[in-house]
This record gives sequence, structure tokens and C-alpha cells, in this order.
Amino acid sequence: MQNAESRYLPQMTDAGLDAAVAVAAVDEHGAHSDGHIAAERALTLYLDKREIVTLMTLGTQPELLVLGWLRNQRLIRSIEQLEAIQVDWETGSVAVTTHDGIAGLDERLAKKTVTTGCGQGTVFGGLMDELEQIRLTPMPLSQKRIYQLLEQLNHHNEVYRRAGAVHGCALCQDRQIIRFVEDVGRHNAVDAIAGHMWAERIAGRDKLFYTTGRLTSEMVIKVAQMGISVLLSRSGITQMGLEIARKVGVTLIARAKGRHFLVYNGAENLTFDDIPERRPRALPPSLPQASSGN
Amino acid sequence: MQNAESRYLPQMTDAGLDAAVAVAAVDEHGAHSDGHIAAERALTLYLDKREIVTLMTLGTQPELLVLGWLRNQRLIRSIEQLEAIQVDWETGSVAVTTHDGIAGLDERLAKKTVTTGCGQGTVFGGLMDELEQIRLTPMPLSQKRIYQLLEQLNHHNEVYRRAGAVHGCALCQDRQIIRFVEDVGRHNAVDAIAGHMWAERIAGRDKLFYTTGRLTSEMVIKVAQMGISVLLSRSGITQMGLEIARKVGVTLIARAKGRHFLVYNGAENLTFDDIPERRPRALPPSLPQASSGN
Repeated sequence: MQNAESRYLPQMTDAGLDAAVAVAAVDEHGAHSDGHIAAERALTLYLDKREIVTLMTLGTQPELLVLGWLRNQRLIRSIEQLEAIQVDWETGSVAVTTHDGIAGLDERLAKKTVTTGCGQGTVFGGLMDELEQIRLTPMPLSQKRIYQLLEQLNHHNEVYRRAGAVHGCALCQDRQIIRFVEDVGRHNAVDAIAGHMWAERIAGRDKLFYTTGRLTSEMVIKVAQMGISVLLSRSGITQMGLEIARKVGVTLIARAKGRHFLVYNGAENLTFDDIPERRPRALPPSLPQASSGN
Repeated sequence: MQNAESRYLPQMTDAGLDAAVAVAAVDEHGAHSDGHIAAERALTLYLDKREIVTLMTLGTQPELLVLGWLRNQRLIRSIEQLEAIQVDWETGSVAVTTHDGIAGLDERLAKKTVTTGCGQGTVFGGLMDELEQIRLTPMPLSQKRIYQLLEQLNHHNEVYRRAGAVHGCALCQDRQIIRFVEDVGRHNAVDAIAGHMWAERIAGRDKLFYTTGRLTSEMVIKVAQMGISVLLSRSGITQMGLEIARKVGVTLIARAKGRHFLVYNGAENLTFDDIPERRPRALPPSLPQASSGN
């Protein structure tokens, strides 16, 4: 790992835009209602002047999104290959230039056609092969730490509270939120965090990844690729998300809200050191309150 | 429109699988907790033996999903081109065969590489061009009808209630829910409904489309392509979703839950005939209850 001074970064614009847009609506009373909605912008990526993809994004951190997208698609293997990432919202485009081109880009794009799928934006085929080589080292974790993080995360989710219709993702270490990103698609938010980790040379092994979104196969794959072994979500999980988590060794904690959570994989890595009191269950009203020995 | 007897349908398997899978978790008390999670299955589509895409799906209505996906990607122009859609879960594949092949398939797939994007599974470029030609006829709608539909929709969302982590979409006419589909991605659920409409020769013009998911550009585009001019969502909207709705003429009703909703476009098509009573606002406790003339 290089130190901060000598760290190479491509030349990047700083073209983040506001996430929420003021808009008027009519409510159920027929009354005018002012509010905010989430922005959604098309950003077409040109790699050495060749059109590659159009990303739909909130647009707050477009350079990191593009960096993480290129990394997660495995189009770029090293950040040193990149000369510049230049976002131009006037044309809705981002020009990525490399120092020496990408060897075999045509073949790689052609191959992608076959497998690029509806996995919510993932190029899925190649990733599954790569997964076979990933085995993460489990990270011990305490219940107290989970509650500390959940409380801090409540202070984020700003766009969500103002405008809704976005997903938030956070990269966490110990009790700190290192980076919080919101976007219209959770795959974008996780790509932007991957971009941040790549730019800052942040390793995944002692990190925890939080998302408001569901833990589908795609999310588990991306987080595993980033070397992170703990995945915490406010939402639920899918069967394939669980299968992949078991295979690569991701501790999977879902439905995490308030004091509640469900651990679907890796419960052995968790210390239960802050177990909430159980609320006494009210007896059904039809039962006499003092008649039963149970 | 042909009548039911003479309607051509490709030969299709009936390979729908259960949507929810029983799974054990550990809760915040360290206690074993039984529950269900949503299934998520990879289905690789072969078109005349050529691998095209891998769809991640709940797997309940795979044939209609594939039919709608082919339609919404504009790979197939007419249902009569299709000879068979055969799903085989053993190999996680679906074999689609045409009578006469697809002219220029190579070129069309190559072109897609350029524009296939992270728009949550959409091939975006071509659709935007097509949008330029869509202008929908507004459909008058009453508030009563919205409430009737929302109440009926409450009885659906079964997988969601059992397992979470899915999106539901419904095709509605008058006060009826014609078809309700859940899937792990909302783009799949809407594709499956498109497949149903195509197979049954159902026109969109007098229909209403409901979704639990957010109204992003992709959702508005797909619904507009289906010729449906009213879009109702439990969630929020994005700026581009709104822009496209204004352009093509989709009445956009979001945040629809209980008696509440917000109309972002096309409020002039809505009759407010069931306005809920406003709950009197409680005075702040610091104010004396009878001191003010306001």
C-alpha cells in the first residue's frame, strides 16, 4: 500500500449535483403540496471515446460512481491505467481516458453482451466465476456495535427523508461511518463506495457494509468483491443472496431496524452483548388473566 | 383483435416455482427464528440456441417473464414469430425458439452492448428513441376508484408479507385487478405483466398499472410502451420519471397508501369525489386551549 502523498489518482472533475429537486404535487384533498423528489440523471460513459453504457444516477458523486463501475465490471484492473474521468452534465456524458487503452476491449464488450443481464445492472456471468475464488476471513462483531452503527446511520439517509426514492449505502469501520452514498439504484450506491475505496486504497477486510436495500445476489457479490465480510441491511434477503453469502463467508444481517435484526449467516461471529429486554406478551383478551399455569 | 379460439400462442412450459423458501435465522435475542425469504433464481435465456441474457427472478411465472422481456427489449416484434418457450430449472435455462430466426440479431445485440445500462436492467438507448413517438390518451379516473383498488391490492402482496424482498406490480381495469405479479426486481414484474398482456392480446389504453416500487424513468417508459396512461405507486418518484410522464402523458400518482396519495402529473384527469376528512390538528401543548381566535 502506498502512503497518501504518493497515491496516484486520475484527473477527475468534481461535478456532483444536488440530489433533490423541488416539485409541486396535488394531494388527496385536491390541495397543492410542495415537496422534493429524487433527481435521476442519465450519464453516458465513454471509454477512450467509445460509448460503453448509460448509467441512471442521482448524480451526487458521478466520478466515484464511474470509477467503481469500471472496477466492478472489471474493465479496468488498476487505477493507474486511468488518466482522467471528466463529467460534463451539459451533454450528460463522462469521458474516461486511459494512458494506454484497454487490451481486448472489443472482445470483452462482445462477451458481455451475452451475459449482461437483468440482475439489476450487473454483468453477471463473469462475476460468478470470480466468486469461486473468494473466501473471506470472518470478522468478529458485537451486538453493541451494530446498535451504535444503526443509531448513527439514522442521522444519514438525508435525501431519503427529503425526497424518498433512493437507496443508501454506507462503508463502516468500528463505530464510524466512513462513507455514506445515496443513489436511485442500490447498485450505483455500492459502485460509488467501491470507487471511493479504490481511490483511497481502502481495504475491505475490517469493514462493515450497510444498505437500506435488499440483499440480493448482486449486492452480496459486489460486497464480497470489495473484500468486506459483514453485510447489514434494513431490508430482507433473497435465497441466492444467502447461498452466495454462505459460499464466500459473508455475515448476513437483515431486517436491522431499531433494536431488531435477523442474522441469516455467520451468527457464530456475533457476540450477543446487548440483548434487548423482551416485552411481556399481552395475554389474549379472551383468556382469564390468572387461570393458566403455563 | 383476434378472438380467444384463434389466438396464436407459442408452446410454453408451465414451470412456475414457489416464491418463498423456509429458512432459519438468529434474532436479536440470540434465539432461533423460523421464517421465509424470497427465492431468487438465475434463468439464462437462449434465443435459437444463442445465449442472450441471465435474468434473476423469483421464478413464479418464468414463461411470461421471458415473453415480456423479449417484447420490451424489442427483440421480437410479433408473438407469431415464436415457436416455443421452454423453461428447464435443472439447468437454469429457458430455450426460446423462433419459426424463422431473428433477422440481424447479431447487429442488434452488438448495438445493445453500447447502450445496455445500469438502468436497472433496461436496454435504455433504443427505448428513449421510441418514446419520442408515444403520446398516450388521458384516461379519466376517480378518487373512489383509486381507494377501491388500493384496498383490493392489500389482499395481494402475498410473497411480500411472507418473505419480503420482492416488488409487486398489478394490471388493473375499472375496479378489478386483472393480473398481479411479484418478483425480486420490479423490472421483472413489469416484464411478466407485459408478457401476459401480449399473450392475451390485452390493450393498455383503459388499464391502470400499480407498483409497490419507485417510479423511476425505467418504470414510466415500460408502462408507456404498454400503452397504459395511469401509473399508481406505493413509493416515490424520480425527476426523470416525472419528465417522461409529462412528455408521453402518463398520470403519475405516487405515495399511495391508505387514504393518502400525491399526484405529480395529470391531476386534471382525476375527479376528487372521495376527499377524506382532515383530522383536526392538535394544538401544541404549550398553547392554552381556548385563548386564540384563529
